[in-house]
Amino acid sequence: MKIGIIGLGLIGGSMAIDLKRRGFADSLTGVEADSVNAAAAQKIGLVDRVVSIEECVRECELIVLAVPVGSAVRMLPEILDMFRAEENTVGVCRKTVLDVCSTKEQLAKTVHYHPMRTHYVATHPMAGTEYSGPWAAMSGLFDGRACIICDQEESAPSSVHLAEKLYGCLNMRMIYMNSAGHDVHTAYVSHISHITSFALALTVLDKEKNEKHIFDLASGGFSSTVRLAKSNADMWVPIFSQNRENLLKVIDTYMEKMSAFRAAIDGFDEDGIRTLIEDANRIKRIIR
Amino acid sequence: MKIGIIGLGLIGGSMAIDLKRRGFADSLTGVEADSVNAAAAQKIGLVDRVVSIEECVRECELIVLAVPVGSAVRMLPEILDMFRAEENTVGVCRKTVLDVCSTKEQLAKTVHYHPMRTHYVATHPMAGTEYSGPWAAMSGLFDGRACIICDQEESAPSSVHLAEKLYGCLNMRMIYMNSAGHDVHTAYVSHISHITSFALALTVLDKEKNEKHIFDLASGGFSSTVRLAKSNADMWVPIFSQNRENLLKVIDTYMEKMSAFRAAIDGFDEDGIRTLIEDANRIKRIIR
Repeated sequence: MKIGIIGLGLIGGSMAIDLKRRGFADSLTGVEADSVNAAAAQKIGLVDRVVSIEECVRECELIVLAVPVGSAVRMLPEILDMFRAEENTVGVCRKTVLDVCSTKEQLAKTVHYHPMRTHYVATHPMAGTEYSGPWAAMSGLFDGRACIICDQEESAPSSVHLAEKLYGCLNMRMIYMNSAGHDVHTAYVSHISHITSFALALTVLDKEKNEKHIFDLASGGFSSTVRLAKSNADMWVPIFSQNRENLLKVIDTYMEKMSAFRAAIDGFDEDGIRTLIEDANRIKRIIR
Repeated sequence: MKIGIIGLGLIGGSMAIDLKRRGFADSLTGVEADSVNAAAAQKIGLVDRVVSIEECVRECELIVLAVPVGSAVRMLPEILDMFRAEENTVGVCRKTVLDVCSTKEQLAKTVHYHPMRTHYVATHPMAGTEYSGPWAAMSGLFDGRACIICDQEESAPSSVHLAEKLYGCLNMRMIYMNSAGHDVHTAYVSHISHITSFALALTVLDKEKNEKHIFDLASGGFSSTVRLAKSNADMWVPIFSQNRENLLKVIDTYMEKMSAFRAAIDGFDEDGIRTLIEDANRIKRIIR
């Protein structure tokens, strides 16, 4: 199958590697707006060719939109417009486009009434690292992780099936929910983690003017807790922005929990600290 | 050398394994107040014998106090009292005791005027996992990590040298600072990370009544950020309690950073969100 990948960063690049290696893609065409990243992707050999978005959509049967969600909201209707033009010219369009973004509701609203809506599948492969760009792409990134497919009843069954085959090749488990539910859940199990990591990094950087000491004393615990603070602004600004309402609620709950810790420590309340810790320990049942 | 380890949990047990395996300890005597842990430590073979604290102090040249810091504050003067009794009886005591606790200032104050103070070395091997108990003990836990030695001028040079040899055998890098400085630094690079993880766990557990979804959707990022929330209350309650003043300052700075994120997201201020993220990204220079 001819696959086009728009955006050759960590996610698009990692997909390219395994879709080619595992025989799902006969040919891989890439689109990359950033000239440095485009040159790197070609040098690394992530895709066969880097072309314009028009050429990519014209040539490929399945298009993966792997750009930050701010750009995806702009580009997805343009791609569906190209599908429409093809249908108007040739009489039929059998193409599918899927996105891989971390927020879903705004994208869903943007194309809800588009005449080619059924050609789009909203997906979120829940995998990543704190690194970005084509040089961060790696084989096996998606293996064993969860992939969420949103609003599947709004997509053509054949397009959903194609998306499932693609993620099956990447060894992902499929989960189905609607866009609104997706955005609530990811606010809690992904987006808030990034904000707490960024805030932790800012706190420590603010205090520790002697950076040597941070490095010397940083335990494994600190490193794992602050790891996500290396994450890329281009990706996360639009996510926080688009998931604003859910995130504000999560942040408020989180601040209440921090305040409870502060009050217990401030009040010499060792029983109170113990209760908070033991309640938090229940996470053991859920996260290995 | 005859080594005694009081407290056969993650830290004491892991030390036991490598001190024996690497030939530093000719014999290893353990003390463990919890009968289940004591039986487990013997079954696993962490130490040669489990004895009373009196017998351990009488028999061993070097005693490692590896109990939660609340217990250490009580037990350290008792051990120094036993050293004193030996000196009074035999005429000389050449024994050394070191602790491995995560807060140092209160311990330092507790024994500051003790006549046997020079026999005590305040140390903090900065290694651990989120697990506890003798079954969590593992070889290699300390390899390559930092060990802080506090207030070394208050210890006899021979005792400091012995502590350095022990941590050298565990492949640790030594860092020297005073107790007060230690407690400020660890508040920033270790203790606050635990509080933010506990708060994150409480936030998600509070919201997600359907636990299946947390498990399904938890990305690697969430798991690493929340990992420390599995940590043991017996260890962390006294740490938070003893490092109260430093922690309150760190929590306040941290809450300011969270509030800055909240305000930027609430105010649709994408430039503000970007600035916060890019400032936080400076942590890349420090943490690999």
